[in-house]
Amino acid sequence: MEETVKRFKAQLEKMRVYEHAMGVLYYDMETVMPKKAAPLVGETLGALSGVEYRLKTDETFLADMQAILAHPDAVDAITLAEAKQMYEDYERTACIPVDEYVAFQVALTASSAAWHEAKVTNDFAKFLPHLETVYDYTRRFARYYRPDAPVYDTLLDSYEKGLTTETLDAFFAKVRAALVPVIDAIRKKGYQPDVSFLEQPYPIEQQKEWTKYLMQVLRMDPDRTVCGEVEHPFTTSFTKDDVRITTHYHEDAVQSSMYSVIHEGGHAIYELNVGDDIKLSPLSNLTSMSVHESQSRFFENIIGRSEPFIEYVFPKLVELFPTQLAGVTAHQFYLAVNKAEPSLIRTEADELTYPLHIMIRYEIEKKLIDGTLAAADAPAAWNALYREYLGVDVPDDKQGVLQDSHWSSGLIGYFPSYALGSAYGAQLLDWMQRDLDVWGLVREGSLQPIIDWLTERIYRHGMRFTPKALMEQAMEAPFDPNYYTDYLTEKFTKLYNL
Amino acid sequence: MEETVKRFKAQLEKMRVYEHAMGVLYYDMETVMPKKAAPLVGETLGALSGVEYRLKTDETFLADMQAILAHPDAVDAITLAEAKQMYEDYERTACIPVDEYVAFQVALTASSAAWHEAKVTNDFAKFLPHLETVYDYTRRFARYYRPDAPVYDTLLDSYEKGLTTETLDAFFAKVRAALVPVIDAIRKKGYQPDVSFLEQPYPIEQQKEWTKYLMQVLRMDPDRTVCGEVEHPFTTSFTKDDVRITTHYHEDAVQSSMYSVIHEGGHAIYELNVGDDIKLSPLSNLTSMSVHESQSRFFENIIGRSEPFIEYVFPKLVELFPTQLAGVTAHQFYLAVNKAEPSLIRTEADELTYPLHIMIRYEIEKKLIDGTLAAADAPAAWNALYREYLGVDVPDDKQGVLQDSHWSSGLIGYFPSYALGSAYGAQLLDWMQRDLDVWGLVREGSLQPIIDWLTERIYRHGMRFTPKALMEQAMEAPFDPNYYTDYLTEKFTKLYNL
Repeated sequence: MEETVKRFKAQLEKMRVYEHAMGVLYYDMETVMPKKAAPLVGETLGALSGVEYRLKTDETFLADMQAILAHPDAVDAITLAEAKQMYEDYERTACIPVDEYVAFQVALTASSAAWHEAKVTNDFAKFLPHLETVYDYTRRFARYYRPDAPVYDTLLDSYEKGLTTETLDAFFAKVRAALVPVIDAIRKKGYQPDVSFLEQPYPIEQQKEWTKYLMQVLRMDPDRTVCGEVEHPFTTSFTKDDVRITTHYHEDAVQSSMYSVIHEGGHAIYELNVGDDIKLSPLSNLTSMSVHESQSRFFENIIGRSEPFIEYVFPKLVELFPTQLAGVTAHQFYLAVNKAEPSLIRTEADELTYPLHIMIRYEIEKKLIDGTLAAADAPAAWNALYREYLGVDVPDDKQGVLQDSHWSSGLIGYFPSYALGSAYGAQLLDWMQRDLDVWGLVREGSLQPIIDWLTERIYRHGMRFTPKALMEQAMEAPFDPNYYTDYLTEKFTKLYNL
Repeated sequence: MEETVKRFKAQLEKMRVYEHAMGVLYYDMETVMPKKAAPLVGETLGALSGVEYRLKTDETFLADMQAILAHPDAVDAITLAEAKQMYEDYERTACIPVDEYVAFQVALTASSAAWHEAKVTNDFAKFLPHLETVYDYTRRFARYYRPDAPVYDTLLDSYEKGLTTETLDAFFAKVRAALVPVIDAIRKKGYQPDVSFLEQPYPIEQQKEWTKYLMQVLRMDPDRTVCGEVEHPFTTSFTKDDVRITTHYHEDAVQSSMYSVIHEGGHAIYELNVGDDIKLSPLSNLTSMSVHESQSRFFENIIGRSEPFIEYVFPKLVELFPTQLAGVTAHQFYLAVNKAEPSLIRTEADELTYPLHIMIRYEIEKKLIDGTLAAADAPAAWNALYREYLGVDVPDDKQGVLQDSHWSSGLIGYFPSYALGSAYGAQLLDWMQRDLDVWGLVREGSLQPIIDWLTERIYRHGMRFTPKALMEQAMEAPFDPNYYTDYLTEKFTKLYNL
């Protein structure tokens, strides 16, 4: 067994090398690379992913995994968890012919470039063939893996083990039922906070200083983190020593990059605090996307849009933008960044209407995958749902179906993670408050005890447990979406004096 | 033969993939990566270089190269040149045991990080063990390749085929003999141009605009080039569609980044104009480092520090820095950026004293390699030579032996390329003027005909010819350093009214 484990670990290290290289190529593509290099990097990523495919599906590696899984008591817990994880990965991967696997990687690079172009030029037609291709591959690969399962469930399961359409339909129905009355009450009330001070130029150089400050408040070690600039922000990491967030600066919307940094910062805090024992292991990557999004949205909204947090960071913001914020109080800023109003752009949406943005994507994805909606009809379906759920008219595809990068990069079935993650976060908050004076700590900028609490219960484990087991262990109770709807109802009832 | 060539080309494509990935990892390491990630990227680069080593030294690949070289008439000229090039590469590589090859790549990453740290903290001791390691590996590898040749000649040959210590000794002796009297005459004259307007804050944001403008003047396609920020500027490319320069902004020295951008721009112009027929071929990489440096230094000095060039770009500079340059004329700026005075920092040195900076490095490298100077004694030797050749006292190692990144990244024997390159450039100018009204074109900002002339004679060929053949073909005459010494003598005699 010793030889087997040694060989198994050596193979994992090889995979780490390819994932590191591909990860840096991808980050570089999004942040630095000149655009005409896209086809070349597509070829390179395709070739590297071919090597990775062969490493993952290697026969000796398979035999080693099977030997480990057959003797779970003969290995340590981490090795066993790695073998389980990689065996599942093997099953997902080995069913796909290598040529198709590589071709999909190449197609994704082209698709990503086409989406960028289509978004900038507001031209859905440029993206359409790529959207079709990505959905075709995704559908086909899901069927290779589970020929008899509903395709969309297979996709959901890949981001959140065990998640099904049935569960999500019920979740979204509950969320919609609880939140629509609050949204309606706000609309009827007719009051909105003053946001005029946000609608001014906030020079990007100072916004960069603001980013640095926020990263410091979020306890992101500057020797292990960087922040790049991209069209659509994301986070990536190569180990806990190299965690990269990204943002997009809008001169006329300081809160946009601010909450992007805190959102991606939440992802980064997770990655930075994985256990040292799994630092180089595939277990360090992630658990589920919902658990990951629970952290990003926890820091973005529950912490970052709380009054105590605003009170703590506001003096620094005033120092950076004294003329823009002359006469503005922390309380006014708090009200402004929590303005709840149906709108067009998911990433700019307030905490209350946000899950409806997700629900729209969820409905469309389901139909695109099962073929009841053609890709060419996605813009019309999108616009119709924005009218129905949020009561807004979408003026163009750039602010509509083209706004998110997810589909272009093959993330289909991912969106529900944002809503589920938000719901996890609300339940976590409730539990955390039993151990910590959360708001007292936030008010004085002491985020470390909060991060320590989360590290102990979630971060350090990485992928060692299923999301369900991990969350239930962290919260010592089954997942319950009522925490989420109660949290939002209470917060916005108070904010709007409903 | 058809099968052989097909297999040979497929192997080259595999190498391209690894070189692309490693190149991006390296660029990322220098420009973006958080510093604690250095050991990890070292492991990854080490592992990838191990794969590359095996690709380069593969037995079938060797047999294919030999088959092609045995039947030169059976293949096209490009394939033949590729086989020659790769066979030489094979001979250099295969003599090194794979473990040492990989260990050296890992050591270089550590060395590079240690040099950064040592330079910032002005602490040579931190870099010393790494410097010793790099020299040890370099010496050992050169002996594996050519056990009986002088080690330093083997190194020179790797950057410039056929170059020897004997040739360089003669070259530097000539350069020193010709230039020292000019430098002395300037010193005796006692006059120096006004440079006070350069010694002011030039905000970095506007300097970035200035970079963009210069890149445009240099005809660097914005869809194929980017400019990053680093401690020590360099250029890298992954094909002609992805060419990356770097610079370092000093707020109190606008000319520093300006000439860095034009220098790296010269490298980039070369890479951007390689022939499409060798775009993905290893032949696209480079020819010799001297030919490459001839282009960077041609654009930096011969073009960039000429009065017609300054006249053309100066209005834009004034537009960006109206207060700093109030009342300053293009002619005054021209005089200021050509101020010749012995100084400490190579990259900031004027055109006239520059080759003496190179000569110092050349003398020290030779002795470090042959063991007549211990690495620990390099700072003292450095300081002594700066006193002897340039008459300046080195106040600390940061401004002395630690100033350049070359040794830390394994570039030993590279420095002479800068001086030789400058000399090539002067001879090229002479030849170019027979075909083109060079200064008339530069004065109106029309650099394209100049780039076209160089593309036709040099750039498009990439590595297809030896530097000697290429330069002799471009200049239709053997290399003659008198063009260089004449050019400098004439320029500085005029500038200083000697």
